[in-house]
Amino acid sequence: MRFVTFEKNDKTVRAGVLLNDEYVVDMFEAAGDELPANLLDFIACHEKYRKKAAELLSISVEDSAVYRLIDIRLKAPLPVPKSFRDFYAFEQHVKTARENRGLEMIPEWYEIPVFYFSNHLAIKGPEEEIVKPVESDWLDYELEIACVIGKEGRNISASEADKYIFGYCILNDWSARDLQRKEMKVGLGPAKGKDFATSIGPWIATKDELEHVRTGKGYNLAMKARVNGVLLSEGNMKDIHYSFAEMIERASRGVTLYPGEIIGSGTVGTGCIFELGSKVHRWLKPGDIVELEIEKLGVLRNTIIEE
Amino acid sequence: MRFVTFEKNDKTVRAGVLLNDEYVVDMFEAAGDELPANLLDFIACHEKYRKKAAELLSISVEDSAVYRLIDIRLKAPLPVPKSFRDFYAFEQHVKTARENRGLEMIPEWYEIPVFYFSNHLAIKGPEEEIVKPVESDWLDYELEIACVIGKEGRNISASEADKYIFGYCILNDWSARDLQRKEMKVGLGPAKGKDFATSIGPWIATKDELEHVRTGKGYNLAMKARVNGVLLSEGNMKDIHYSFAEMIERASRGVTLYPGEIIGSGTVGTGCIFELGSKVHRWLKPGDIVELEIEKLGVLRNTIIEE
Repeated sequence: MRFVTFEKNDKTVRAGVLLNDEYVVDMFEAAGDELPANLLDFIACHEKYRKKAAELLSISVEDSAVYRLIDIRLKAPLPVPKSFRDFYAFEQHVKTARENRGLEMIPEWYEIPVFYFSNHLAIKGPEEEIVKPVESDWLDYELEIACVIGKEGRNISASEADKYIFGYCILNDWSARDLQRKEMKVGLGPAKGKDFATSIGPWIATKDELEHVRTGKGYNLAMKARVNGVLLSEGNMKDIHYSFAEMIERASRGVTLYPGEIIGSGTVGTGCIFELGSKVHRWLKPGDIVELEIEKLGVLRNTIIEE
Repeated sequence: MRFVTFEKNDKTVRAGVLLNDEYVVDMFEAAGDELPANLLDFIACHEKYRKKAAELLSISVEDSAVYRLIDIRLKAPLPVPKSFRDFYAFEQHVKTARENRGLEMIPEWYEIPVFYFSNHLAIKGPEEEIVKPVESDWLDYELEIACVIGKEGRNISASEADKYIFGYCILNDWSARDLQRKEMKVGLGPAKGKDFATSIGPWIATKDELEHVRTGKGYNLAMKARVNGVLLSEGNMKDIHYSFAEMIERASRGVTLYPGEIIGSGTVGTGCIFELGSKVHRWLKPGDIVELEIEKLGVLRNTIIEE
């Protein structure tokens, strides 16, 4: 199933289930008070709600709880997730990004999956405008896939971790490379280089939707990025070096994970301008339209604007 | 005024106002439904609630909404803050910590106040037990002061930033130095070295409580840390290099801050074992009692336990 958060004409914001590529069901409206009005509450108890939610897939498109996608506005599926950790799990991205800074590969990268926390209060949705930071002239996108935690757990082993995943979505970890470069010299990692915006969506696909393309450490899913319609990045999720299960094992070591926390994969190889280099494309500027596409997970499109 | 969150014998958790050093008023119980039951909701609208809350200071200790501190359990004043950014604002700590790793001071540190996000879902309160991460043998405390954001804002200038501060509290940024050292080589900053626990409390003092000791970039407030009763760290908040106003200016650049977000100062000079060195004290181990004390802000005591 594919879950969204959407806004109606009357500004009501509701959790929804995609029927096909044309309709969304307001789960609260369709199921009375048997399903919650927001997706975070649904995810927190999704095992309890699963059967009722599945019944919505056979609802008539004439039902008053069914809306045409062209009549509503999709928001980030989780407008305020519980937290956002971003990992660094694709080898090619780490290698190339370091080469571009004249640095060798780090041996520790092969020993542990490493992450940083970013700003879960600055999540943007599909079609939402992204404000270019005023001080930045090196604005970049990052093509990532994210998983959404669906169950509370602590010290989760990689072999058990799939049970803790609710589903997956596209994630764009917008990056101001000049701000990032400067602050990272101080050693605390990226913060202002990343905290102004992260977009997710357009929907969260439950993990069973991807099961038939599972391979190696990930899934056989083509990942693409286009800027103003020009294809710049092309990778595949299956090339991931650390599985989401291994990332969850790492994140939950000595720490409780909660439903609604988001874990980003890190950028797929070729998945950002920094990695491609200035000969391939200039940094982003206001007016640019960036589209990230991942098979089964849709297209996440955002336009850059001036502050 | 001094605000707390506390648990009664019947397990009800409520926001409270300290009357003196012996009593706490349950603000919801005392003010009917005119004040909220939790401190995050209070802080979000504290300007509206201010007058009503101040009236509680003249309540009789015989009132049924007044509890003796010895009969209740203080929790973290914000058990789940909206977010947690930790800065690096004391020069002596940065200098000494780098010297201990054989590194020179970083020029960029003097140009911009730098921070990282940590785990706001792992906040602990006074007297709460801190679980030593299983893989870590180098457990440390960090003596910090934090401010709590009281008002939504974006692109806040340092000169306006005080208006956005609700108050201050003690913060212990527990650190697993061995985990931190390894992961930081990958370049994304500290995460697993810090994400298992951060303690705050015992109360949040509103900023007016500190106004008479304001000096330079901070406040004249002695800061101390004791391990098992032995004084190890002694600093003063007034030695801070970046004011909280400057940190808020940095954090809010291109980013909206919300009431209930927490900003840590970074460690005061001498404020951790890593900085003092192994000749002064060994790393922490289960059974150790760590007390952080800051004038006007109380004593924040935690005991280390085994997982």
